Amino acid sequence: MAKRDKLVRPKARLPKGLRDISADETRATARMLAAIESVYELYGFEPLETPAFEYTDALGKFLPDQDRPNEGVFSFQDEDEQWLSLRYDLTAPLARYVAQNYDALAKPFRRYQFGPVWRNEKPGPGRYLQFMQFDADTVGTASVAADAELCMLAADCLEKLGIPRGEYLMRVNNRKVLDGVLEEIGISGEDEGFALQRLTVSRAIDKLDRLGGEGVRLLLGTGRKDESGDYTKGAGLTGNQADLIMAFVEAEASSNASVLASLRTIVGTSVTGGEGVDELEQIAALCEVSGYDETRVKLDPSVVRGLGYYTGPVFEAELTFEARNDDGDIVRFGSVGGGGRYDGLVQRFKGVEVPATGFSIGVSRLQTALDVIGATTGEHISAPIVVLVMDRDRLSDSQQMTFELRAAGIRAEMYLGTSGMKAQMKYADKRGAPAVVIEGEDEHAAGTVTIKDLEKGLRMSEDITDNEEWRSGRPAQVTVPRGSLVEAVRDVLNAQRG
Amino acid sequence: MAKRDKLVRPKARLPKGLRDISADETRATARMLAAIESVYELYGFEPLETPAFEYTDALGKFLPDQDRPNEGVFSFQDEDEQWLSLRYDLTAPLARYVAQNYDALAKPFRRYQFGPVWRNEKPGPGRYLQFMQFDADTVGTASVAADAELCMLAADCLEKLGIPRGEYLMRVNNRKVLDGVLEEIGISGEDEGFALQRLTVSRAIDKLDRLGGEGVRLLLGTGRKDESGDYTKGAGLTGNQADLIMAFVEAEASSNASVLASLRTIVGTSVTGGEGVDELEQIAALCEVSGYDETRVKLDPSVVRGLGYYTGPVFEAELTFEARNDDGDIVRFGSVGGGGRYDGLVQRFKGVEVPATGFSIGVSRLQTALDVIGATTGEHISAPIVVLVMDRDRLSDSQQMTFELRAAGIRAEMYLGTSGMKAQMKYADKRGAPAVVIEGEDEHAAGTVTIKDLEKGLRMSEDITDNEEWRSGRPAQVTVPRGSLVEAVRDVLNAQRG
Repeated sequence: MAKRDKLVRPKARLPKGLRDISADETRATARMLAAIESVYELYGFEPLETPAFEYTDALGKFLPDQDRPNEGVFSFQDEDEQWLSLRYDLTAPLARYVAQNYDALAKPFRRYQFGPVWRNEKPGPGRYLQFMQFDADTVGTASVAADAELCMLAADCLEKLGIPRGEYLMRVNNRKVLDGVLEEIGISGEDEGFALQRLTVSRAIDKLDRLGGEGVRLLLGTGRKDESGDYTKGAGLTGNQADLIMAFVEAEASSNASVLASLRTIVGTSVTGGEGVDELEQIAALCEVSGYDETRVKLDPSVVRGLGYYTGPVFEAELTFEARNDDGDIVRFGSVGGGGRYDGLVQRFKGVEVPATGFSIGVSRLQTALDVIGATTGEHISAPIVVLVMDRDRLSDSQQMTFELRAAGIRAEMYLGTSGMKAQMKYADKRGAPAVVIEGEDEHAAGTVTIKDLEKGLRMSEDITDNEEWRSGRPAQVTVPRGSLVEAVRDVLNAQRG
Repeated sequence: MAKRDKLVRPKARLPKGLRDISADETRATARMLAAIESVYELYGFEPLETPAFEYTDALGKFLPDQDRPNEGVFSFQDEDEQWLSLRYDLTAPLARYVAQNYDALAKPFRRYQFGPVWRNEKPGPGRYLQFMQFDADTVGTASVAADAELCMLAADCLEKLGIPRGEYLMRVNNRKVLDGVLEEIGISGEDEGFALQRLTVSRAIDKLDRLGGEGVRLLLGTGRKDESGDYTKGAGLTGNQADLIMAFVEAEASSNASVLASLRTIVGTSVTGGEGVDELEQIAALCEVSGYDETRVKLDPSVVRGLGYYTGPVFEAELTFEARNDDGDIVRFGSVGGGGRYDGLVQRFKGVEVPATGFSIGVSRLQTALDVIGATTGEHISAPIVVLVMDRDRLSDSQQMTFELRAAGIRAEMYLGTSGMKAQMKYADKRGAPAVVIEGEDEHAAGTVTIKDLEKGLRMSEDITDNEEWRSGRPAQVTVPRGSLVEAVRDVLNAQRG
């Protein structure tokens, strides 16, 4: 084996669009997930875990913009040549789970789930093949109270994570309202041309943020050429048709009441459209009664949501503040989560409609935002105390000290390499150790031990370029009787925290 | 879409060998992971996350018994037809990570990681295509102090999880000792026939538990026919050769000292073998000094570990007690984790040897054991209070009560379905709700609210078959002023915890 490996040595690399996650980020994510989980739990959702991959036909295909051959998902075949796919979200597996266990479940069924999902898409900045979602769903009720609740839950999550009120917005729309408008302009129904037009229309609306009203207007009509010269074919609507869509998208939004009034006019006589406006009104009212007014839950006709399975209310959690990143650039984070009602997803299996609604947080995106604003939750874990090995023949002495520290609940490790003192100090430094424990020959003879304080703040200061210099200059070193090791280390740690 | 779906309705099912994980198990796993994590952290390991799949060549192929065409892993191709595989353990990705980031890492590099891994194997009872591992590894040191530490860490984990001292054992062996024995019987070296013999020998030893000494002896010789009549070809050793192997495997094991003495004799003049025995001696001594004596860390020549990449000390965490499962059968859990030294794994990429050692807990297996002995850690979460909806026109009143409970930190949900009182009570019952909140017409008029205690213990008692009966007979119902809702619910919860 060793010989063969030498001939074809593999390169240590990851596919583009995949990444390793460092200790700091892993810990930050864990803290964030715990905070979100506590809110989901508070609302009465229960955890569920489904496997990473499933039969492809059970997951279905509801991804937007499937320009790549594998249609947005990673797929492979099992022994019997049946196709399996990695999940692309947590909603499709939930629909399969509910259909499979329908009779046994208390309904409405309310579950939360977090975990990675995978998309076979072109990777880009901040766009990975694997990313984490954290969902809460209520399955088995058509009541918009369930949708309203998700809007409040999302608001609570963001606040729990340290995002102040006023710096985020749950934007809410209803697919039925758009359907009503499409009815009004005469492109509803099962005709395939109409279906394509509707898809193009909703994709166009989805780009309002990026392209503005002008750009969307072009995409509703013949099409639009972007700066690079690429041409995107439009929905081919007439001027009048496009006018109504634009009136819908740009409906007066100064207040929830004004949005509702505009939408009532625009949907005209469409029954579906009317229903949609009614539902939005109920959602706004239910949120309002618990104090989630339009400064937090805002009706907004421009919200579309890309996934193809939504059938009613849709919502998007948006961070509204701007911040500067490390390079000093202004960053807007935009959407950090969203969801909506998908009354047809379980029906795919069951034949009967099982109404459902859900909300999903894009964990990585939200975390990037939290990092930038410096919001943190939960307890931070300090680096371990490093017990140096001054004499390899007395390894067990170092081992014993490490054991004592751990037994006292102090995070500690013995230096496990085989290098000398200098390398050991460098190691402790690189690890960010708060202190090292030294029992050299002199200490050993005298029955003492030295604790060297490596004070984090100072060490990390960018002003100090020569580590040796500040270290030698620091008096933060104490020699105590060997029996007082734990106590002395605890004193150093407390002083640093102080 | 709706129309097409009706024609080909997918079946809601999971591939064999995959499973959904319920709320209770998900929570139990989370508690278990938190306990393990706290020990890994205490020992100074840092978290790392790597993606679920990687380039196939970067992961390498080190799985035992690769009888299936896909060679034990799930693989698929990317856009450029490069092969990708789902990780089959957490060690291979770690080796890739270390090789890729070698210069930037503090060495020894110490990380922990948990997460699912996938094996394309024939599923069976308790054997799934996806399962969870939780690893700690130290990379960049040849010191057996790192191996000794992992043995102590494993013991600490098991005790932290509620497994009493004396009911588990870390069994430790060293591949080098076996290599020494193989040298002694003359089948070392790069000859392909010898390599195959060595593989067959180590597989045979691995079956000692299951087949006993007799069975292993047959597999070392010409071969063995099992009860079903299936014949397994043996390693083809001569009688003398097999004798020495058996002497090794069955070395006197009454104490660590006696194992060491036997092994010294058996490895004879082999340098590798001698080294291996020295290392075992050091590991035992280092553990002993911190009180992890042979009742916890036991030298045992029959430990092999299946994975092909181990090069030195190998260890297995074994639960030694027997228990009865729900069916009254006696269950032995055996190995719930293991690991060892793999000095060649990073070398695959780097060309230079980067010594490393690691320990991996099989999460599901350990959890099954914990369930059976009833060991639990961490806090249990009670089911939510269910606020009933007595009048759909007063939905917002129910919403407001739910909000107030949540704002007070009480897990609560409004009934989100659209059914009547009876179905709502049934729902609360199925959810295991500790209580329901009722504000009917009378209560509403009087400015009061009723809290109905659904006392969990009683409700779950199997003696009571008629829920209506006990419920109607219970006095546990209290009507209080609407303003005292939160207080009253808290009283009910406290009384139940009482």
